[in-house]
Amino acid sequence: MDLNTFIPLSSADNPAVKAAAKLKETKERRKSGRILLEGRRLCLDAVRNGVGIEALFVTERAAERIPEIGELAAAARKRYLITPALSRKLADTEGTQAVFCVCETPENRAALIPGGFYLLTDAVQTPDNLGALARTAEAFGLDGMFVCDGCDPYQPKALRAAMGALLRLPVSRADAAETVRTANTMGLATFAAALDAEAADIRETAPFAGGLLVVGNEGNGISTEVLSLCRRHVVIPMAGAAQSLNAAVAGSIARWELMKKWKVDSGK
Amino acid sequence: MDLNTFIPLSSADNPAVKAAAKLKETKERRKSGRILLEGRRLCLDAVRNGVGIEALFVTERAAERIPEIGELAAAARKRYLITPALSRKLADTEGTQAVFCVCETPENRAALIPGGFYLLTDAVQTPDNLGALARTAEAFGLDGMFVCDGCDPYQPKALRAAMGALLRLPVSRADAAETVRTANTMGLATFAAALDAEAADIRETAPFAGGLLVVGNEGNGISTEVLSLCRRHVVIPMAGAAQSLNAAVAGSIARWELMKKWKVDSGK
Repeated sequence: MDLNTFIPLSSADNPAVKAAAKLKETKERRKSGRILLEGRRLCLDAVRNGVGIEALFVTERAAERIPEIGELAAAARKRYLITPALSRKLADTEGTQAVFCVCETPENRAALIPGGFYLLTDAVQTPDNLGALARTAEAFGLDGMFVCDGCDPYQPKALRAAMGALLRLPVSRADAAETVRTANTMGLATFAAALDAEAADIRETAPFAGGLLVVGNEGNGISTEVLSLCRRHVVIPMAGAAQSLNAAVAGSIARWELMKKWKVDSGK
Repeated sequence: MDLNTFIPLSSADNPAVKAAAKLKETKERRKSGRILLEGRRLCLDAVRNGVGIEALFVTERAAERIPEIGELAAAARKRYLITPALSRKLADTEGTQAVFCVCETPENRAALIPGGFYLLTDAVQTPDNLGALARTAEAFGLDGMFVCDGCDPYQPKALRAAMGALLRLPVSRADAAETVRTANTMGLATFAAALDAEAADIRETAPFAGGLLVVGNEGNGISTEVLSLCRRHVVIPMAGAAQSLNAAVAGSIARWELMKKWKVDSGK
């Protein structure tokens, strides 16, 4: 890899580095519409999924070690060669791989279409749960994910837990009630994973042609308004003293079970 | 609550406090066979599940606020009234509830029985995953869990993620290969959640009378020896670019799916 096209940076006061480091804050990500990715795998996922890369930051040592550095460099509008000290400034993890991308927030790429199957997270708070839900959504072939309130899906912890799925899957930030209303109008079956008395055993769900599954907040479940808009309330039957399942686990099992009914009907 | 039977403590040099604080370290837990629980819910779970409580530590303020303080006090062999400063010394969380129990490690209570259904974690490393797996194991009515290598199930993070399930469910620390061998001898179906070429679609598993499901390490899966001992290799079919599922999610879906076959056959 010819590193001559890279701009060398060593000062922590450099505006490009400062702007990139600021993207570690949720507020700054929202304001700028940019996110900061760390690590070879996440940067590659962004490049290979058409996410616009504004800047690539890499140490000389990392550039020599990453076989795909040319692919990353070709996709990036700007390329910087940084010192290990600057790398630590940008890093969210200890033992960083010392490669970072500033890119456009790859969101609002999910759109409801009749016959599709979608996940909606209503105020899921834990980045690990949101990430695991995205990972399962992708693994089960869902058509998109709507992230409504809750934690920022583009924070480092969520991105890592998703193993890149949040960059590969169509994801939109949206209003939960509005999205469920649109889904109802479109004829999608709207499922609430709920614990209320009316909820039916998820194994006994009737087949459906397309659907939207709503997963709620870890502590409070789905908000009252959104719950009332969902046409089918489903529950995962449980035994023992357990009150509930981990949000990522519950959402994943619900999807697993619903996917079967969906596939039957859509012929997929 | 009459707090006169509590011994007041204010010095960080007190041997009881020092011994309790030391239990925050895995090494010390293993050596002493004791664990430290924090928070009203976990302490109650221990008391109500017959775990021997050696000592209760609580601040005056917390004692006034916890309705079940009498139940906790009655179960504890020793009771201490501690200062807020000592509470911070024992706490693993910010905003601690300022109630702690030192108790016997409630392990080695799981035993294989023909017809039962069990989970075995082979070197699961993340406390959050281990906790979520225990939570699902309890919710699905499993008969016990074998924790083999990997992270300490009695560290604060795992206990919290399990929402008490690690105290309520029969749990044993065990050798993975030996446990699988015993299960085979006993006629239990031994399942490996694996990605190898021989693995069968988990939805197509033949019914079985009792079983043991093995879930492997987050990065490396199940160890070669244990994998070769498992008689049925099952896989959760996936779509898209996803390489794998989160360990807790995969383990939970596998159990969900296997439980159906188990229930059919055992008439549960």
